[in-house]
Amino acid sequence: MTMPTPLTGVVPPVCTPLTPDHEVDTSSLTRLIDHLVEGGVDGLFVLGSSSEAAYLTDAQRRVVIETVAGHVGGQLPVLAGAIDMATPRVLDHVRSVTEAGADGVVVTAPFYTRTHPAEVARHFRLVAGRSPVPVFAYDLPVAVHSKLDAELVLELASEGVLAGLKDSSGEEGNFREVVLGARGRADVSGFSVLTGSETTVDAALAMGADGVVPGLGNVDPEGYARLYRYCREGDWVRARVEQERLCGLFGMVRVGDAGRMGGSSSALGAFKAALYLRGVISCPVTAEPQVPLSSGEVERVGKFLAGAGLL
Amino acid sequence: MTMPTPLTGVVPPVCTPLTPDHEVDTSSLTRLIDHLVEGGVDGLFVLGSSSEAAYLTDAQRRVVIETVAGHVGGQLPVLAGAIDMATPRVLDHVRSVTEAGADGVVVTAPFYTRTHPAEVARHFRLVAGRSPVPVFAYDLPVAVHSKLDAELVLELASEGVLAGLKDSSGEEGNFREVVLGARGRADVSGFSVLTGSETTVDAALAMGADGVVPGLGNVDPEGYARLYRYCREGDWVRARVEQERLCGLFGMVRVGDAGRMGGSSSALGAFKAALYLRGVISCPVTAEPQVPLSSGEVERVGKFLAGAGLL
Amino acid sequence: MTMPTPLTGVVPPVCTPLTPDHEVDTSSLTRLIDHLVEGGVDGLFVLGSSSEAAYLTDAQRRVVIETVAGHVGGQLPVLAGAIDMATPRVLDHVRSVTEAGADGVVVTAPFYTRTHPAEVARHFRLVAGRSPVPVFAYDLPVAVHSKLDAELVLELASEGVLAGLKDSSGEEGNFREVVLGARGRADVSGFSVLTGSETTVDAALAMGADGVVPGLGNVDPEGYARLYRYCREGDWVRARVEQERLCGLFGMVRVGDAGRMGGSSSALGAFKAALYLRGVISCPVTAEPQVPLSSGEVERVGKFLAGAGLL
Amino acid sequence: MTMPTPLTGVVPPVCTPLTPDHEVDTSSLTRLIDHLVEGGVDGLFVLGSSSEAAYLTDAQRRVVIETVAGHVGGQLPVLAGAIDMATPRVLDHVRSVTEAGADGVVVTAPFYTRTHPAEVARHFRLVAGRSPVPVFAYDLPVAVHSKLDAELVLELASEGVLAGLKDSSGEEGNFREVVLGARGRADVSGFSVLTGSETTVDAALAMGADGVVPGLGNVDPEGYARLYRYCREGDWVRARVEQERLCGLFGMVRVGDAGRMGGSSSALGAFKAALYLRGVISCPVTAEPQVPLSSGEVERVGKFLAGAGLL
Repeated sequence: MTMPTPLTGVVPPVCTPLTPDHEVDTSSLTRLIDHLVEGGVDGLFVLGSSSEAAYLTDAQRRVVIETVAGHVGGQLPVLAGAIDMATPRVLDHVRSVTEAGADGVVVTAPFYTRTHPAEVARHFRLVAGRSPVPVFAYDLPVAVHSKLDAELVLELASEGVLAGLKDSSGEEGNFREVVLGARGRADVSGFSVLTGSETTVDAALAMGADGVVPGLGNVDPEGYARLYRYCREGDWVRARVEQERLCGLFGMVRVGDAGRMGGSSSALGAFKAALYLRGVISCPVTAEPQVPLSSGEVERVGKFLAGAGLL
Repeated sequence: MTMPTPLTGVVPPVCTPLTPDHEVDTSSLTRLIDHLVEGGVDGLFVLGSSSEAAYLTDAQRRVVIETVAGHVGGQLPVLAGAIDMATPRVLDHVRSVTEAGADGVVVTAPFYTRTHPAEVARHFRLVAGRSPVPVFAYDLPVAVHSKLDAELVLELASEGVLAGLKDSSGEEGNFREVVLGARGRADVSGFSVLTGSETTVDAALAMGADGVVPGLGNVDPEGYARLYRYCREGDWVRARVEQERLCGLFGMVRVGDAGRMGGSSSALGAFKAALYLRGVISCPVTAEPQVPLSSGEVERVGKFLAGAGLL
Repeated sequence: MTMPTPLTGVVPPVCTPLTPDHEVDTSSLTRLIDHLVEGGVDGLFVLGSSSEAAYLTDAQRRVVIETVAGHVGGQLPVLAGAIDMATPRVLDHVRSVTEAGADGVVVTAPFYTRTHPAEVARHFRLVAGRSPVPVFAYDLPVAVHSKLDAELVLELASEGVLAGLKDSSGEEGNFREVVLGARGRADVSGFSVLTGSETTVDAALAMGADGVVPGLGNVDPEGYARLYRYCREGDWVRARVEQERLCGLFGMVRVGDAGRMGGSSSALGAFKAALYLRGVISCPVTAEPQVPLSSGEVERVGKFLAGAGLL
Repeated sequence: MTMPTPLTGVVPPVCTPLTPDHEVDTSSLTRLIDHLVEGGVDGLFVLGSSSEAAYLTDAQRRVVIETVAGHVGGQLPVLAGAIDMATPRVLDHVRSVTEAGADGVVVTAPFYTRTHPAEVARHFRLVAGRSPVPVFAYDLPVAVHSKLDAELVLELASEGVLAGLKDSSGEEGNFREVVLGARGRADVSGFSVLTGSETTVDAALAMGADGVVPGLGNVDPEGYARLYRYCREGDWVRARVEQERLCGLFGMVRVGDAGRMGGSSSALGAFKAALYLRGVISCPVTAEPQVPLSSGEVERVGKFLAGAGLL
């Protein structure tokens, strides 16, 4: 399908269900897609950080995008991450995911390399110049170790290099600068500003954001769809209640023991455990070398679900 | 060939010459290998950071390892980087480079992901458990954003998980702790401790390091071979003179204007410019999105070569 | 006066006007206080980062707090920073500012030292145990290089160690966690959650924050007072318009040439230039070694004022 | 006394013994000075990081410098740290310590503030312009969160702003660049390059460093004096044996449980425990909020002493 301009609404970063021996579980993946679509989401983002793209092999990435694009069949837009270290490798992923049906690609600044802001700009220009579909910038300093500042994003937007921004930086001041800049500049149009936050969605939408890409949206797509609707209707009271319920649910990302595992193991482990407990996916395993949640930790995920009315 | 235990000597991280349209220039690559072998190096390390592995596509990486392993034909050991974000992707590279003839693989901690020390250890154990060749840990905090501490490295050495360490952290205190630990522990043997420094090689060898992996060794392999020999002979006076000459030459990494490009563009650009000026490779281009050196900057590289007696 | 429980409203971090020879300009300081009080603020925060506390000598700090506390005479609460590296030095400042009339103190985690979270908690407990006035935690990772996480803040709130939080981290997710935690826990009451942001005040208040500590409030106290009032009245449409006007004004912090000066020189230089242009203070000089704005940069500050209807 | 030009030899950063109620223990301090002087050191550095300067109040700092300068009475040069956030505060300390008899001051780049390299240079120029004694730059990125690069240090050396560098960065490549630059430039003379490392002293001296400032020198001044002498005599074999003995002893810095305390608590706690166990100081307490070593941890310090032949 053609990408809406701008892309709006709830676009969850889709988890990648795995089998016990760490292969992509395509049955669970299609069930997850159905769960999201029925939950009222407006688009799908596969092969991002919440999808464990950093772990998936190229073959597994291909299975994911083919499965999702094939299953969705153009009902709603599918964004795909092209997550890799630098331009030529990113372009390989762009080619692969667009051949498989991605309607847009999501690209970070180079990482691992020591990169100058001028090189970051050059990277996005080169990628966009050779991509057959719109390019969204993915701002994720915790992974990439550099920040996309508002000025650069707006410059690339005005050049037509970027179609949107997925901001997972957690820095709302810079985010708002992009929102206001995208609206205020005559040379920018149709640019989509999306927040990756789970817990400040009402705030982002109140500021003028176009949409949200919440990892927790895998677990409770109806919740985020409702939240989005309330915000669009200007019903800030109900929006806040819904958002605060989701804030409570989000507490699950810290069930994992920080002395025993990293933040990804805990957060992605919790999302997958929740999807498993809700009967959406068949197995909650995460990719290696992440550490699995203990049974006690999974039980605590269940309590978060129960507390949010989801079990 | 079988990997020496421990691996010792000068093992330069081999630059990847590119054509003007950014493909691997295999003719230049084999000329570079001849230049290094004739220069007296003891091994080769391909597909590391100095090889621009972060930029090279999988197909290009394959061309590099096939070209080098084929050309070397077992005369000396070839290490290959398996640089990627997390375990499953790293294992794909391990498979690819060992099928093409690598005698050992070089692996970093996971990056892009948020990884706990326990997960870093698990990563190396999983990779080593499935690698048909010895695994060397690559400590490069500037790229990976975490540090391999001495205790972890020695634990993995004692388990037989790691065959060696390439330390590019620049932190000599931790480096010495590994050197002393590897020598002092009964449960560690044949472990190779290699410094990635260009400018403190005499110091590292005086401390007991097994070898050196200097990017500048591409430009002046004879210099590093001499330096290594002087150190092994205990001729610290001549070693220091040679090392200081190489320190002067190393100044070339800063020819690039820091207002216009990042550190990689400047350093790798300088190494390639030097190889081009010395007639070893046909084209000094670096991978995208790195910024090329200006002609004035290339000229300054030439002055460094002249100053070190290499032009 | 007694500190309100919780402290609410607009509490600007008061700039410290200096004479051309870098002494505290007490006449300008009292004029600035009048400007703020007449502008409708609810409290004052002196000797914080926007006050250049990191630069002011102990004698200068004393002049500031004595001048302000004396001039205010209990009309509204005065918070004072006790900004220093570790507990004993912080306690010296606590003693000094409370003797001079501060109604509350604002304290960061230790910095310069390498401090464990357990030591951060111990620091706040020790300071609060010996402070005659309520202690507010100051979360400013850009200066302190560690983050106060929500769990620690709430634990210290429940113990009665902290009376409030001034959050200048820019991380709205963690901020909201504190807001919800402070409201949701039976063992926490009267705890004041204040945002240090200039540009997301409407969002913070919509989430349930108690007040705001905006550096830009020096320049336009009426604006922030209006914004606060609209938010409290639930008039989110007018609040957003006012906030967006202030976002535009805030652009002044980037007038300084980033190739020639740091972020403090530019932002504090702009605030002082604006106060000078508005006729509030006699001299826009900042403390050493900050770099002064050029006349062209000061002119651009004037344009920001004009654009916001303040000249 | 007049500061030697350049300052050379062993210049330990003197620990600050405290009483059980956290006041400066001047009797222990003079005993520690005697222990160091009898151990053969060439100078003393008080009020640095190993002296817990970040914790000591101004009054305590004054007691330390007065006690040490008075006790030493010009027998050997006394450097004093003037550790604070920015220029005016640093200048207050410079005044204080030089009035009390310091022969030189040691100054870091500004911290807590967000400072541009141009402002760092300005800071050192302003401090040196108003200091009655020579100024040494203190490079300690782990505390200050910025690095003094070789180019800046050498520029300030050539201007006569800096008399020397105490490099505690652990980055030997940059350190060597300063050493070679200070020797190679006609416009730099008498500049003293000192390493703050405990474990790479032989390497630093072999490279041409002028002296060493090892925290562990408090515990074993004779060891460092011997090590320095062997290096100066070119007896690298004995130097390495001595250095490796000291590397073993240095392991004490990690006795503290990293789950319970920070690196300072562990390292400074171990140095003080060792001085206590050796009978030099009366009480091993560290300043607040550092966490004390447990009795088991102190026992392990004793084992390190025994292992190095010091008990």
